[in-house]
Amino acid sequence: MDTFDFASWSQACLLRVEQALSDGVGVGAPAGLGEAMRYAVLDGGKRLRPLLVLAARQAVAAGDGKASASAGFDEAALRAACAVELIHAYSLVHDDMPCMDNDVLRRGKPTVHVQFGQAQALLAGDALQALAFELLAPEGAAVPEPVQARLCRLLARAAGAQGMAGGQAIDLAHVGCGMTEDALRHMHRLKTGALLQASVLMGAHCGNAAPAALQALADYGAALGLAFQVVDDILDVTQDSATLGKTAGKDAEQGKPTYVSLLGLERAQAYASELLVQAMAALDAAALPDTRALAALAQMVVNRSH
Amino acid sequence: MDTFDFASWSQACLLRVEQALSDGVGVGAPAGLGEAMRYAVLDGGKRLRPLLVLAARQAVAAGDGKASASAGFDEAALRAACAVELIHAYSLVHDDMPCMDNDVLRRGKPTVHVQFGQAQALLAGDALQALAFELLAPEGAAVPEPVQARLCRLLARAAGAQGMAGGQAIDLAHVGCGMTEDALRHMHRLKTGALLQASVLMGAHCGNAAPAALQALADYGAALGLAFQVVDDILDVTQDSATLGKTAGKDAEQGKPTYVSLLGLERAQAYASELLVQAMAALDAAALPDTRALAALAQMVVNRSH
Repeated sequence: MDTFDFASWSQACLLRVEQALSDGVGVGAPAGLGEAMRYAVLDGGKRLRPLLVLAARQAVAAGDGKASASAGFDEAALRAACAVELIHAYSLVHDDMPCMDNDVLRRGKPTVHVQFGQAQALLAGDALQALAFELLAPEGAAVPEPVQARLCRLLARAAGAQGMAGGQAIDLAHVGCGMTEDALRHMHRLKTGALLQASVLMGAHCGNAAPAALQALADYGAALGLAFQVVDDILDVTQDSATLGKTAGKDAEQGKPTYVSLLGLERAQAYASELLVQAMAALDAAALPDTRALAALAQMVVNRSH
Repeated sequence: MDTFDFASWSQACLLRVEQALSDGVGVGAPAGLGEAMRYAVLDGGKRLRPLLVLAARQAVAAGDGKASASAGFDEAALRAACAVELIHAYSLVHDDMPCMDNDVLRRGKPTVHVQFGQAQALLAGDALQALAFELLAPEGAAVPEPVQARLCRLLARAAGAQGMAGGQAIDLAHVGCGMTEDALRHMHRLKTGALLQASVLMGAHCGNAAPAALQALADYGAALGLAFQVVDDILDVTQDSATLGKTAGKDAEQGKPTYVSLLGLERAQAYASELLVQAMAALDAAALPDTRALAALAQMVVNRSH
């Protein structure tokens, strides 16, 4: 197999994702709302979730069969890549609001409610969530309707009360409180892990993967999702706001339990490395022909500086 | 055809809907979040949107074919009935928040943010929207996946920036401003009309209706949706808070353009009656075997006192 050039691969993916987001977000919306939606989504973010979708799609692509099936699955994956980013973006908009984290800086820019007011921020977040599902269920597109339904199912579960929103509620309930490591892990599995894992699984459902491969990719997604949060907690204490593009040191300031506050910095770093090993082992177990992009993403998640 | 007993029909429908909502909302959610979600949804509301779904399903049921198809369509319709109510409920939770309408009374009870705090209200609304799509896309259920995809499509469009959320953004931008009748109609078509029309269409997609019948039902839904808002504007000035179960007279107090402020009370009432005639004409044009429940609902919308 050729050497895998992750930088070229991700650059090509990001070009498609940015174009699709720019074509699809806020278009046809009332002026102020559309502007707030685009501000929340475009020109920012690592796009980790979209890359996970596209990497997982690549891992299962060898089983496509007919070329017409490939085209449908590729379109489904691009739509899924945008949809997971919209859910992520909406959650940041709402999470930054004064009644939640009350943050004024995000991706190096004023947060949406600072720029557009709280009411518009609230509506923009709501509209972005709806748009995520709208993108997954296009009319007359090449994406087969059963695939559309499965993508909606995976995303809805990951976004809702037993996923991201549920994790945020647990987070909210524990500001200033202690938390066991099990409780912290459960919170993060919901708050950030569910959507990261769903990104992997949505990509994997854009193809004909066997149940065993899907399970292995679910394991990969779970390990990667947890690793992401552990590293996030580490970066919050080791990096400054300029590097992060958001306010550093907020966790400690708000008395939030984190992996660093619970384990200490050194053990948190060791835990992140251990989760990377788990993710790689799951990829091996998936026994799929091309998991190079997924492997590179797991390494990137653990070794990132922001 | 037998005389249609709307009261019995709607009572039977509501029993099923209330049970399904009670079984499905907030279950498995973290404690505080689940409680806020259930508070927002259960024991309240006219359930107009669920009734529209079930009435439209009834209108197309004669074309089901096999009994197994009927069971799948019936389950799809019940899920759709719950989903539209969840979208409606979430919009009320967010709309009542201090940064929006800042309302403290809803369905005769303290609003969600008064009862649970703003952060929990924000998350509960977000989680209710996700749950709506989760209900529409069940795994291993009797509902065919293509039907699931179509229901997600209709709901996502109606809820988003070109539907409900977009209408609320237009509303927000016009507080204290004048508005032409065309602009007011456009706003309401999005803000309340889109979801009411989608309720009808989602019910109609739980079956095998011909395109002409679907178009006629779309026309019915559009007329009914607009009539609903005209009557809402009328009730805001003619009824008191106790009758409405929410704060009366808010529109005028906030300087919001309404059909009453634009047309005057008498012409607004005449317009509501005209829209009822349009809705009934569309039902005739649909040429479906049993549109009695849809007809009764249109009459209820226009003749209601709260």
